[in-house]
Amino acid sequence: MCEECGCESPKRILMPKRPVKLDLNQPVLQVNQDHAQKNRELFARHGVRVINLISSPGSGKTTLLQALAKRLGPRMAVIVGDLQTDRDAVRIREAGCQAVQIETQGACHLDAQSVGEQIERLDLSQVELLVIENVGNLVCPASYDLGEHEKVALLSTPEGDDKVLKYPSIFCRISTLVITKTDLFPYLDFNPVRAEEECRSLTPQVVCLRVSVKEGTGLEALEARLLGR
Amino acid sequence: MCEECGCESPKRILMPKRPVKLDLNQPVLQVNQDHAQKNRELFARHGVRVINLISSPGSGKTTLLQALAKRLGPRMAVIVGDLQTDRDAVRIREAGCQAVQIETQGACHLDAQSVGEQIERLDLSQVELLVIENVGNLVCPASYDLGEHEKVALLSTPEGDDKVLKYPSIFCRISTLVITKTDLFPYLDFNPVRAEEECRSLTPQVVCLRVSVKEGTGLEALEARLLGR
Repeated sequence: MCEECGCESPKRILMPKRPVKLDLNQPVLQVNQDHAQKNRELFARHGVRVINLISSPGSGKTTLLQALAKRLGPRMAVIVGDLQTDRDAVRIREAGCQAVQIETQGACHLDAQSVGEQIERLDLSQVELLVIENVGNLVCPASYDLGEHEKVALLSTPEGDDKVLKYPSIFCRISTLVITKTDLFPYLDFNPVRAEEECRSLTPQVVCLRVSVKEGTGLEALEARLLGR
Repeated sequence: MCEECGCESPKRILMPKRPVKLDLNQPVLQVNQDHAQKNRELFARHGVRVINLISSPGSGKTTLLQALAKRLGPRMAVIVGDLQTDRDAVRIREAGCQAVQIETQGACHLDAQSVGEQIERLDLSQVELLVIENVGNLVCPASYDLGEHEKVALLSTPEGDDKVLKYPSIFCRISTLVITKTDLFPYLDFNPVRAEEECRSLTPQVVCLRVSVKEGTGLEALEARLLGR
């Protein structure tokens, strides 16, 4: 669809920047799936656990990763997706771990191929946890397997407690729901129990966590969860 | 792209639910453009001004429209887009104006055809202002002309003042930037001047407004702007 996003729209496929061979019987998502499988094999070879982190713009993905980078240092690495700018990768590197940026040039999600290309830029020898910070978007990234072990979604308190059932395509696929910016509870009408219950109605086994980077709460539990402990 | 979104992905085009005739030389966006042109003619016939309202999930689109509905009553009507649920249309109707819901069944943006189908469900005889509340997404809706007079974007203070240059595809196309939830200024590191200056660097003629529905500030100026005064 979205021509401006540079996604796999029909127009882009008809007029690709680089020549590509298309098998019209093979859906785009199958091509992505093949690359995701290659990524999965690579992650297994390196013994690294991989999280695909998804949320709306401004839900606090980068701020959370800065806080985790300070705790985990070289044990964590990050691949950051943004439409434009490398602001987020710079912030995460400054906090103490490796980070590489994918500028999607307008595309609304990361795909497995572009993630695979970035893995080669990372030194994974000391890395236990690789977090892929997806483009800020609650819709499109849900459909693209990047080869990750788990998808984790953030929902920030200012977004409202009604968002889970409004954006089910992501919330039905996650292992962990992280409610962020809980320090704003006193100033907002956000009922975390409602969001968590609606998430469990889609994904009964989901683990729900609450975090405030500002107050430093919930980070230990989140770190353990992301490391698979 | 996004198969789960139900967008015009290659897979959907290869296996449509309803038979469609595709001219492979005609890009998808051109088809949308033709429907947008029909919508534009319809809006002109009814003498109604139309705004395409775009933001991240949870930036306060519906809350803002509730506040405007209380002020404008039957002079305003709303077409609401959401992946699922009709929660937003119900809220806006309760506030006092006509509202119809498009459930996109997972699609990440509204298109001109689906908007055109909803217009017929509205009685536009008393309506001066029609607001199309797009799906909560800062990326994909930017590419789709719905036949509107202007695109207006919301940026809520909790999302952060760095979002304009990270999501330029929408912020370069708007007539008006509305910074929402300004009542949260005391609790956040949000510099509205930075966001506004970055927006003007993309769109020099953009008008920037600041609104807090909670405190009732900025609504008069926004109402005048949306009505084209």
